Amino acid sequence: MFNLTLRPIGYVHNARLSLDDDNWGSVVSEIRLDDFLPEESLDGIETFSHAEIIFTFDQVADEKEFSLSRHPRGNKDWPKVGIFAQRNKDRPNHLGLTIVSIVKREGRSLLVKGLDAVNNTPVLDIKPVFAEFLPRETIRQPEWSHELMKDYWD
Amino acid sequence: MFNLTLRPIGYVHNARLSLDDDNWGSVVSEIRLDDFLPEESLDGIETFSHAEIIFTFDQVADEKEFSLSRHPRGNKDWPKVGIFAQRNKDRPNHLGLTIVSIVKREGRSLLVKGLDAVNNTPVLDIKPVFAEFLPRETIRQPEWSHELMKDYWD
Repeated sequence: MFNLTLRPIGYVHNARLSLDDDNWGSVVSEIRLDDFLPEESLDGIETFSHAEIIFTFDQVADEKEFSLSRHPRGNKDWPKVGIFAQRNKDRPNHLGLTIVSIVKREGRSLLVKGLDAVNNTPVLDIKPVFAEFLPRETIRQPEWSHELMKDYWD
Repeated sequence: MFNLTLRPIGYVHNARLSLDDDNWGSVVSEIRLDDFLPEESLDGIETFSHAEIIFTFDQVADEKEFSLSRHPRGNKDWPKVGIFAQRNKDRPNHLGLTIVSIVKREGRSLLVKGLDAVNNTPVLDIKPVFAEFLPRETIRQPEWSHELMKDYWD
């Protein structure tokens, strides 16, 4: 079996302490680089408006403890779907991924808006958003996913 | 030091054998789930048009062997920038991330278009694209990044 060992490149610092489902839009977070990385790793990031943050949901249970097919948020009005058709945190490898707005870079820190991760979350990567990497065709998604997102960024 | 151990959820199968920089747009890849995951993990994915694929650049050198600030593609006409202002594969944790078009789901396999990963690449996660998670403001990026992407999807 092939396993991969990763090391956090930094940690999230913000005022958000609990894994609530909604109201993440106004959260400002600082991502502070870990000491093993040089400050220059962030050079030029401020020339981009957005970044993709890959992080780990380090507070979730082991994957043996959850089902890999379920109703999103346990809502039976919505269809039962597989974990790879959901963005839920209870997933194999516990990886989170969010596009954030870049607010400011200050030395070893990057300030971002709209990161849906709690204080102390380990960050695994930061990638600048290139428009060329966004979907090049119209996006189609089921109605339940729009309903689920209704208050997410409020 | 906090380390994280991940296990591939599946592997890429396609006709692309080398890590060339350009011409990824027409590549069709099969992502086949590893045996430890039930087939239902993919249920409902076909109701989305796009997915985010997190994978690992498993053929790159160890990070001690590359610089964390450099000219993208070694092109001195472009500014020297930090690794977190680039999407280059030679990065801490070796994580790749691409939005793909979903072509078809067939049992334990997902067929996708536009995945810039070579044959046998280990996949770490599949997340459906929700329009609500794309940038909600205009995207700004430096000119060099547009130039770099000129032939990427051709």
